[in-house]
Amino acid sequence: MGRIYNFSAGPAVLPEEVLKEAADEMLDYQGCGMSVMEMSHRSKVYDKIIKDAEKDLRDLMGIPDNYKVLFLQGGASLIFASVPMNLMKNRKAGYIITGQWAKKAFAEAKIYGEAIALASSADKTFSYIPDCSDLDIPEDLDYVYICENNTIYGTKFHKLPNTKGKILVADVSSCFLSEPVDVTKYGLIYAGVQKNVGPAGTQIVIIREDLIRDDVLPFTPTMMKFKTHADNDSLYNTPPCYGIYICGKVFKWLKAMGGLEEMQRRNEEKAAILYKFLDESKMFKGTVRKEDRSIMNVPFVTGDEELDAKFITESKKQGFENLKGHRTVGGMRASIYNAMPKEGVVKLVAFMKKFEEENAK
Amino acid sequence: MGRIYNFSAGPAVLPEEVLKEAADEMLDYQGCGMSVMEMSHRSKVYDKIIKDAEKDLRDLMGIPDNYKVLFLQGGASLIFASVPMNLMKNRKAGYIITGQWAKKAFAEAKIYGEAIALASSADKTFSYIPDCSDLDIPEDLDYVYICENNTIYGTKFHKLPNTKGKILVADVSSCFLSEPVDVTKYGLIYAGVQKNVGPAGTQIVIIREDLIRDDVLPFTPTMMKFKTHADNDSLYNTPPCYGIYICGKVFKWLKAMGGLEEMQRRNEEKAAILYKFLDESKMFKGTVRKEDRSIMNVPFVTGDEELDAKFITESKKQGFENLKGHRTVGGMRASIYNAMPKEGVVKLVAFMKKFEEENAK
Repeated sequence: MGRIYNFSAGPAVLPEEVLKEAADEMLDYQGCGMSVMEMSHRSKVYDKIIKDAEKDLRDLMGIPDNYKVLFLQGGASLIFASVPMNLMKNRKAGYIITGQWAKKAFAEAKIYGEAIALASSADKTFSYIPDCSDLDIPEDLDYVYICENNTIYGTKFHKLPNTKGKILVADVSSCFLSEPVDVTKYGLIYAGVQKNVGPAGTQIVIIREDLIRDDVLPFTPTMMKFKTHADNDSLYNTPPCYGIYICGKVFKWLKAMGGLEEMQRRNEEKAAILYKFLDESKMFKGTVRKEDRSIMNVPFVTGDEELDAKFITESKKQGFENLKGHRTVGGMRASIYNAMPKEGVVKLVAFMKKFEEENAK
Repeated sequence: MGRIYNFSAGPAVLPEEVLKEAADEMLDYQGCGMSVMEMSHRSKVYDKIIKDAEKDLRDLMGIPDNYKVLFLQGGASLIFASVPMNLMKNRKAGYIITGQWAKKAFAEAKIYGEAIALASSADKTFSYIPDCSDLDIPEDLDYVYICENNTIYGTKFHKLPNTKGKILVADVSSCFLSEPVDVTKYGLIYAGVQKNVGPAGTQIVIIREDLIRDDVLPFTPTMMKFKTHADNDSLYNTPPCYGIYICGKVFKWLKAMGGLEEMQRRNEEKAAILYKFLDESKMFKGTVRKEDRSIMNVPFVTGDEELDAKFITESKKQGFENLKGHRTVGGMRASIYNAMPKEGVVKLVAFMKKFEEENAK
């Protein structure tokens, strides 16, 4: 059996070219006689790998000089705590609750101070993005936190909240590098790379320099101070070297593909194929309010659990993997990240059409 | 150029067989049509990978049922904080200071409570292990902490400290799986895997179940509570999947090699070749008190910085990499972990002999 179409929400599909290169270099990275897994993180050869990765990411996103790029480990779930530990100067932060990950970040922030739910879409199973144009923002709020693309529910902030001058913090794990971004609108952007960029175990934090502080909350572990990593160019301790190496390859792949404008074109094209079919189908329905749809994660249902199960079983036989939806939404979910080729989506839709015809009541 | 002899202190040499398998499986893991980097950590195929890794580790080390095995991320340096956060019930812990890593763990513990230096070998640049047979241990001490093998200084606790009934916590990063171990002597054993087992970015914690508590210190991040990971079999969030997969392969390799008894035999044999030469040489000298020598990290000097530099330059040309010593010890260091073949040490010693002859004064 060859490569399948992998619609996993994360860890997720990576570019085949990147995996081929990684396989070729596994025993001997560019003639240095060892694997990237085996080399000292203080060596010249690794230094070039991590520096190139940062440079390519800066090029791709147009990251201004007054922002630091940090390559971290510990999980995005650890950053749920790092954010308040580093940024909760007044011990008061606002969270917009658009799904499970925002909820978890919100709960974690409550350990460290007053966390306020500024808006929520919990009333309709997080199937939309709440209106954030005129939030009730206290004067002494430290930051406004969003999960920009909601992997489980398939929603996306297409317009950023009006933070009324407060710092915007965004978890962009599932939309990272899927389209151009204006970094200056954020104080801190972070992503677990395992959805759109690399293997699980590396997180990237992009933080405005003036927010990197020494006077973090008491009891903050040295490893969770952003300053520790900023001062050491992510080499305070041994970083997740191999993960960063794969991310670097994906950055080069993205540049070769034409950068984030081109990725946006491709991603919108792929999403449109799927959403168009969902809007026309009598059997399959999208679960998200149209204007809030994600172009990365597309949940859909038939409304009949047995039929959903049959669809998932048959889709597997056709080489479409990981289409089962999250248990809180039910049905199906197709995650169509950067590395999912258009062909995969076209074939999925063809299969859905066929399934609908064969199973029409 | 082919594979070189990599004497790096970490990240370090891995078994070539393991790297070959990983390269072969990069695009398609055992016929599932995707890379291990791309698969959901909740999938059946990944579940088998992590479960097998745990089982093989338990077999290798003879880990009793009342100990949990956790696969974590964040860095061993993050565990410097996790240990006091989880175990400092009385806010008092004892540290034995045998090098830079013990010092860092000690400094981190001071953030969370009273950390006491029970013994130290700082007086002689950490070139020995202090006598720990009759330490002054307060009644309410929460634990005694050691760094069992000191990567930088090349020392090893060949006899564990007498903790007088207190919990022993050991950072075994640079001697992990190098020899058989009696797990029951410890309350908590942990290792960053990047020295003897796998790629940087995964840490393994082996903890006695009664030490896994809910009443950790206030402000402990959810991700740093050992209970979070113990309750979820290391799948609370997305773990460093690919790192765990490589560790699992190394565990299978160790079993195939004959387990930890055989690794000890090989490691002692390799170390003896090098130490025998150092003891006989007129040019090269070991830096560590004989009875405290590590079988993993072997620092040595000529006593002449220019000669050291010349040796390092010439060794590189012969395909011996990463022999430069840590700046605090100077000279050279050969890290001869499990995956370093005997042949590598034999060839290194032959080269050292030749160098000594050619550079004799």
